[in-house]
Amino acid sequence: MTGFSTDRAMALRLDSNDPLAALRDRFIFDDPSLIYLDGNSLGRLPRATVERVERVVRNEWGAGLIGSWDEWLDLPIRVGDLLGAHLLGAAPGQVAVCDNTTVNLYKLASAALDARPGRSVIITDDDNFPTDRYVLEGIAKQRGCELRMINSDIDDGLPLAALRAALDEQTALVSLSHVAYRSGALIDMASVTRLVHDSGAMMLWDLCHAAGAVRVNLDRSNADLAVGCTYKYLNAGPGSPAFLYVRRDLQDHLRQPVWGWFGQRDQFAMGPGYDPVPGIARFLTGTPPVTGIVAVDEGARLLAEAGIGRLRAKGMQLTDYLIGLADTWLAPLGWVLASPRDAARRGSHVCLRHSEAPRACRALAAAGVIGDYRAPDRLRLGPTPITTRFADVWEAMDRLRQILVHKTYTEFPPGP
Amino acid sequence: MTGFSTDRAMALRLDSNDPLAALRDRFIFDDPSLIYLDGNSLGRLPRATVERVERVVRNEWGAGLIGSWDEWLDLPIRVGDLLGAHLLGAAPGQVAVCDNTTVNLYKLASAALDARPGRSVIITDDDNFPTDRYVLEGIAKQRGCELRMINSDIDDGLPLAALRAALDEQTALVSLSHVAYRSGALIDMASVTRLVHDSGAMMLWDLCHAAGAVRVNLDRSNADLAVGCTYKYLNAGPGSPAFLYVRRDLQDHLRQPVWGWFGQRDQFAMGPGYDPVPGIARFLTGTPPVTGIVAVDEGARLLAEAGIGRLRAKGMQLTDYLIGLADTWLAPLGWVLASPRDAARRGSHVCLRHSEAPRACRALAAAGVIGDYRAPDRLRLGPTPITTRFADVWEAMDRLRQILVHKTYTEFPPGP
Repeated sequence: MTGFSTDRAMALRLDSNDPLAALRDRFIFDDPSLIYLDGNSLGRLPRATVERVERVVRNEWGAGLIGSWDEWLDLPIRVGDLLGAHLLGAAPGQVAVCDNTTVNLYKLASAALDARPGRSVIITDDDNFPTDRYVLEGIAKQRGCELRMINSDIDDGLPLAALRAALDEQTALVSLSHVAYRSGALIDMASVTRLVHDSGAMMLWDLCHAAGAVRVNLDRSNADLAVGCTYKYLNAGPGSPAFLYVRRDLQDHLRQPVWGWFGQRDQFAMGPGYDPVPGIARFLTGTPPVTGIVAVDEGARLLAEAGIGRLRAKGMQLTDYLIGLADTWLAPLGWVLASPRDAARRGSHVCLRHSEAPRACRALAAAGVIGDYRAPDRLRLGPTPITTRFADVWEAMDRLRQILVHKTYTEFPPGP
Repeated sequence: MTGFSTDRAMALRLDSNDPLAALRDRFIFDDPSLIYLDGNSLGRLPRATVERVERVVRNEWGAGLIGSWDEWLDLPIRVGDLLGAHLLGAAPGQVAVCDNTTVNLYKLASAALDARPGRSVIITDDDNFPTDRYVLEGIAKQRGCELRMINSDIDDGLPLAALRAALDEQTALVSLSHVAYRSGALIDMASVTRLVHDSGAMMLWDLCHAAGAVRVNLDRSNADLAVGCTYKYLNAGPGSPAFLYVRRDLQDHLRQPVWGWFGQRDQFAMGPGYDPVPGIARFLTGTPPVTGIVAVDEGARLLAEAGIGRLRAKGMQLTDYLIGLADTWLAPLGWVLASPRDAARRGSHVCLRHSEAPRACRALAAAGVIGDYRAPDRLRLGPTPITTRFADVWEAMDRLRQILVHKTYTEFPPGP
């Protein structure tokens, strides 16, 4: 960030040069004074989503009734293709929108283990998102596999050397987050996938904190499998359906464990035995959640319009700027950066570390800035490229500085 | 049905005596002339749902953002309790709204098999809904179990003697539909559950075509496990989330295979190992679909207001009336009842059988009556107690009679 200044004028200058600035108007800002740096937990509401959900409920369901299934049946794949093309670097026919991240992880991890008979080790890292660790723990226990847990640096992500040391000819599956949920550490997809493939194992990526925030190149990285949610940077709403990716050449060799009628060939023939459809649809389970998927469609369209290149560039700039202000204003107060300093090694959120983080986070919320407390001592701030202004970052950091300098956080009870 | 007459006046008289008639106005009727007898596939849209979904999207998500999770977190159990109390005969803390029926079947069937080590037979019937058969087939294959398939009568349901003969000391799990999806045959929950328990197996009920249509008494039947969808008689919209039931005393002994963070004790501590919460919430997986669950809430509230006793009484009357008209008008044309004749042995839908059923179904749709074709030769008609009038049934059957008498169905291409 050349010519860095803590002056608010710099934020305004960056905003006036922001090619994505106009897209902010496509979202609902109910309280324009609220600064929301938690879009990496739950993204903001696009205006188009309000209209689309209403249209689907009123017209497609209310008026069209059962006949609208003609329109709905291929939604999981149609919207999956949109995600693939614009945000995941995946050619058509490899992404489906379905279930939640947890269920998709279970399905793909199980399928991967079945594809590596004779191997009995699953590898992940101890800083992976909880549901990932729990799902893998459950599968390992069910199958008598070993779950090998790599120690990650909770500020800096997974050390590649530790992964290299953990891999062996017993490894069936490695599952990692592309962007760490706490530190934001970004791990290189292509080189990790290569490393894992060299050991003969399959690689399953969690893209929850990556999709819509960083360039994801599933095809070019030769990734095997991936899952991710859509309620963070994809702005599809609370509990919106997740997605999954299975590389095309693997699809017909893998069999997921939940054999449902939406994965069945000639589904409405209601045939006697399960005969999975060729292609990505065999990874579907039951009836797809229509209103959820159309919200993913609208969220993805907005990001596609912005372009992942511009989103990534702005995400790096926003977090660089945030770190610059933290260095100047907060470091002298004992606050430590708990994310990679190099923007190329980080997603679109940043952690700052201090023993008073829990109280500071509450004081910040009371001052109109929504961040996120992460145990044990982290304040996580996620400036979302499509909706956050540089002036918002300045304002948030300025309010945080005031809180810390004047110790107004002491008005809140201590502890998490 | 005393004093039966094919005169339309009888339908009008029944409607004028219908205690549920006023509830019809609580639903959207976009085209008042359309007669919709497919609410057992996709129920109609309640007016309150339009408002509730808009409020959740605009206010809770759009304005409340991440803070609204305080309101959303317990939705799966809160709405589950409502279903349990009013529609499923289940005391609080035993029902959760989550995932889809297919995934819930997988979770509960897997948990049941784990609870019966040393037993290796799963029993279902060949007329069970396809996704049920496929899920059980997948689980059986994965575990090396035998899937024992009882031959059902596709017009009359499962013969109890056949079930009795299939059960033995190797049986781990029996899974059946309470109401058959095609014939509507209703099987007695208490006596079947007792029979299954006598063999030492666990019983898993599919309530998709039963919930909201017939009295379900899970607790009183001593049922172990149940699942069901909410987009049929519960009117919660396309692909709305499903529910599951686990009897209280079993909950802490069963472990479902998908270990997700919404089943974790002290979820936001993000602890190192999976430690499932006590109670029904351990059967949740990932982040719950908020807009889907609130639609279930609205649908269930309307049925609760109607009362399952009155809904069931009207469902029996409506289908009796439909069968009465079919006997008089259609039987002479070669159409055969393909559902139990005794209302007490049938849900709220009826099948009529004839080789011209596929074309007749299309001709009927062209005449403004939506029924459902079911292979190989069935027309399925589902008068939904809360939205269907007796006059609708009369009108539908009269139009069908005209189509058959004047052979106008021949204008449509033959075959399904």
